Amino acid sequence: METQLLKNTRPVQVGNVSIGGPGFCVIAGPCSIESEDQFRTTAKGVLAEGASLLRGGIWKLRTRADAFQGLGPESFGIIKNVLLETSAGLVSEITDPRQMDSLYPLVSMFQVGSRNMHNYELLKELGKQDKPVLLKRGFAALVDEWLKAAEYITKQGNDSVILCERGIRTFETATRNTLDLNAVAFVKERSPFPVIVDPSHGVGIRSLVAPLAFASAAVGADGVIVEVHPEPEKALSDGFQALTLNDFRQMMVQLKKILGALDRPLT
Amino acid sequence: METQLLKNTRPVQVGNVSIGGPGFCVIAGPCSIESEDQFRTTAKGVLAEGASLLRGGIWKLRTRADAFQGLGPESFGIIKNVLLETSAGLVSEITDPRQMDSLYPLVSMFQVGSRNMHNYELLKELGKQDKPVLLKRGFAALVDEWLKAAEYITKQGNDSVILCERGIRTFETATRNTLDLNAVAFVKERSPFPVIVDPSHGVGIRSLVAPLAFASAAVGADGVIVEVHPEPEKALSDGFQALTLNDFRQMMVQLKKILGALDRPLT
Amino acid sequence: METQLLKNTRPVQVGNVSIGGPGFCVIAGPCSIESEDQFRTTAKGVLAEGASLLRGGIWKLRTRADAFQGLGPESFGIIKNVLLETSAGLVSEITDPRQMDSLYPLVSMFQVGSRNMHNYELLKELGKQDKPVLLKRGFAALVDEWLKAAEYITKQGNDSVILCERGIRTFETATRNTLDLNAVAFVKERSPFPVIVDPSHGVGIRSLVAPLAFASAAVGADGVIVEVHPEPEKALSDGFQALTLNDFRQMMVQLKKILGALDRPLT
Amino acid sequence: METQLLKNTRPVQVGNVSIGGPGFCVIAGPCSIESEDQFRTTAKGVLAEGASLLRGGIWKLRTRADAFQGLGPESFGIIKNVLLETSAGLVSEITDPRQMDSLYPLVSMFQVGSRNMHNYELLKELGKQDKPVLLKRGFAALVDEWLKAAEYITKQGNDSVILCERGIRTFETATRNTLDLNAVAFVKERSPFPVIVDPSHGVGIRSLVAPLAFASAAVGADGVIVEVHPEPEKALSDGFQALTLNDFRQMMVQLKKILGALDRPLT
Repeated sequence: METQLLKNTRPVQVGNVSIGGPGFCVIAGPCSIESEDQFRTTAKGVLAEGASLLRGGIWKLRTRADAFQGLGPESFGIIKNVLLETSAGLVSEITDPRQMDSLYPLVSMFQVGSRNMHNYELLKELGKQDKPVLLKRGFAALVDEWLKAAEYITKQGNDSVILCERGIRTFETATRNTLDLNAVAFVKERSPFPVIVDPSHGVGIRSLVAPLAFASAAVGADGVIVEVHPEPEKALSDGFQALTLNDFRQMMVQLKKILGALDRPLT
Repeated sequence: METQLLKNTRPVQVGNVSIGGPGFCVIAGPCSIESEDQFRTTAKGVLAEGASLLRGGIWKLRTRADAFQGLGPESFGIIKNVLLETSAGLVSEITDPRQMDSLYPLVSMFQVGSRNMHNYELLKELGKQDKPVLLKRGFAALVDEWLKAAEYITKQGNDSVILCERGIRTFETATRNTLDLNAVAFVKERSPFPVIVDPSHGVGIRSLVAPLAFASAAVGADGVIVEVHPEPEKALSDGFQALTLNDFRQMMVQLKKILGALDRPLT
Repeated sequence: METQLLKNTRPVQVGNVSIGGPGFCVIAGPCSIESEDQFRTTAKGVLAEGASLLRGGIWKLRTRADAFQGLGPESFGIIKNVLLETSAGLVSEITDPRQMDSLYPLVSMFQVGSRNMHNYELLKELGKQDKPVLLKRGFAALVDEWLKAAEYITKQGNDSVILCERGIRTFETATRNTLDLNAVAFVKERSPFPVIVDPSHGVGIRSLVAPLAFASAAVGADGVIVEVHPEPEKALSDGFQALTLNDFRQMMVQLKKILGALDRPLT
Repeated sequence: METQLLKNTRPVQVGNVSIGGPGFCVIAGPCSIESEDQFRTTAKGVLAEGASLLRGGIWKLRTRADAFQGLGPESFGIIKNVLLETSAGLVSEITDPRQMDSLYPLVSMFQVGSRNMHNYELLKELGKQDKPVLLKRGFAALVDEWLKAAEYITKQGNDSVILCERGIRTFETATRNTLDLNAVAFVKERSPFPVIVDPSHGVGIRSLVAPLAFASAAVGADGVIVEVHPEPEKALSDGFQALTLNDFRQMMVQLKKILGALDRPLT
């Protein structure tokens, strides 16, 4: 079954990692980069368990104007050091076209957050870059609008778009969002873009992140992006949904078994 | 991981099948029973591939008053014959408390459809029966309301309730409903009821039913209920989401591999 | 503008009140009938201010099995006394076809609650009666499904259907529901049924009921149904959204001014 | 009733128009400025009937990358000419912080569109300006998030924020959006910001714009913003929801009657 789904997908190269091919990609790291220690510990921990790319927020879009908004440029030195030590690539969010010049040298892939999926001026700028873009689905975007947003990037010449389902807003309040795995199967069948899933935002409850990551693999996603923090209870943002390094390790053990049944190695 | 989820679940016996224990249960059959041939062919086909219970509608709730509403009592003889030949149990929907006497001898489990989850008078009647109840989630019901609806049954003395997630209504129109696998993980962790998933209604597109069934197994569901029809294009209801017998066979091959990785045999 | 909307509407006679003609109808009363004093006080209070029909619940559908479910048959004597004293008609909800015989002599109009809009077996029974039916929109029903539900009644021979918009379930949680006045304007233009609005359930916050009632009149509705209780803080159900008799009086003063600007008298 | 709602509101001065005080403000004009003739004809037409501010899009956010995106800088000369001739103020949308310098001299109020309500970098820039901001609600934003987005502006020192309800995304598809007048009453009661309503986007069907504008006035809004086009069938964007000049004239006649009943003059 997954073979049929894969046949439509055009793989995208992110640094030395191919996403959308036979392998399954795990991207992991903290919601926000908070300190050199926090980022280094998380990075080394997740890479040792099989993650192939790091995530880590520099500028955070927060509902409250007085909430922690990310370290911003203070994190640049931290990032350079940790990437050098680990030889890993970073995926990080751009929230304003004016950040392009400083962010470009740091990332292997730009991330467009859910709140910015409709920020077409930003998408056009990313369409002019020569690095891939992880386009999160707007939390209330139709699948059709998500695919049309991808075209704002590709029409400028950048075909390296990876879609990321991260949960939609519905009437249900038991979980933070409603992870729409229907949409993952749908866009895998009907678009050429690789698709990954963010179960951390998708469900928003630590203990349920791993089951949803397993479901994402089973439905045919090309990877997952998960939030990991050495001490979630001290995290400056979204700690309630971050896995500990131990949670991550346990998740990876089971995930590898499921990927085996799907004939998909970790990439 | 699934071990942790299972530890909260109290298995329910449906005929000679245990749901909510170590095994994974596949319930399959037509949306509506349309003829003896159609039901027999489907029943024998799905049982041969590993289904352990049959589904088949007698009274159908349809949005349009002039749409096919099920064979009703005409199907009783058909059902008796096919169940006798196959020694299988049937799950079928009750849509009015006045159907109880005629339906009771035919089913191993009563089904409450999504539109009737809030029909508390019907739930109270089912709470007085000594057969299990498959309680579908209302298509716009909060998880909390779903669990409270289950209490309408258990408070009358019938503890044999199995929950069924079948997709919720959201803004998205690309798929018929949005299958809420978050909710499956959530209620598995926080309630004692076994949970099964209906990927047929949950996604409503034939080619996507199997991937969503795999995701349901991976997220920790105790089973799936799927629509199968020998000739979907001739079905009197919901043909667009019914698997052919061949689709079902292919789905079962891959499903067994995934269940193997999860250490869950077919029940 | 309202003239254009009215031209499509076929008035329905409810006791001695015409709904859907030039006049605007106010239906008021308690959520549940709790005692003879409570019902009499409310009834006399609202009729004195211009209400033309009473509301009052006998059987209540409640999310929790252990919540107050209405007085049931205990209220029959209360109702007979109060209707005799006031010469007013009653609108009350039927929640099970088996209540028909006892409810028929008490009501001028049957109400189908939001949770039962899809209870087609109940709708068919109501289609065989010779009294009007107030069909509340399902809280997650499409306008199209609402109109098709009305056909379940009219196809059985009962054309006296009045539609009632009472708020839909959305992602918003600041208010109990989202009152969909778009839908009121839409069905007024495209269906022959009179339409009334329930701002009490629609917004679910006492202080906002009156503004939403004014908006309902302005958008072209043929009436409103509002919850009133002499002592809302002691109500056994939904007290938070009930108007006091004084609130109701103030609302009516302003409503009459707006109806004057719309050239619609109170019916 | 509206007196109570008004007492919380802090009026905002937009050019020579006060919004949020006793008067009701009508803002009207085309979705996009398409030509000097089109803008002049519309502007003169709506001002003659009682509009006090003009609307007109320069940069349009469109779902499709190949749809008309607005005239951009080509419209600057058109705008200058028409504003000079009519002595009216303009409300127009900013879609990128880099447009600030060219847009500032043209507008009396900046508009933030629904897709950009969460674009906090843009909101911060607007918080540093000395002109008012019309903050449209995100089409899937909670009321709470809308109010917190307003704080991104006020925290930078700009208190002149006006909220605009323009419909939310729900499961309903009969109308373009679901206009949430509950939210209007709610924020009027609980925030100091004036609130206006956009019934054109809120319902998205020309014939229903006027009834929803009337409802907006009745629920307590401080104004409406409506799309008007001399020849809607030739409009380059959103023609299906634009009023003709004749529709606008008829709407204003009835609106004035309703405002009279509410003791609110046109501002």
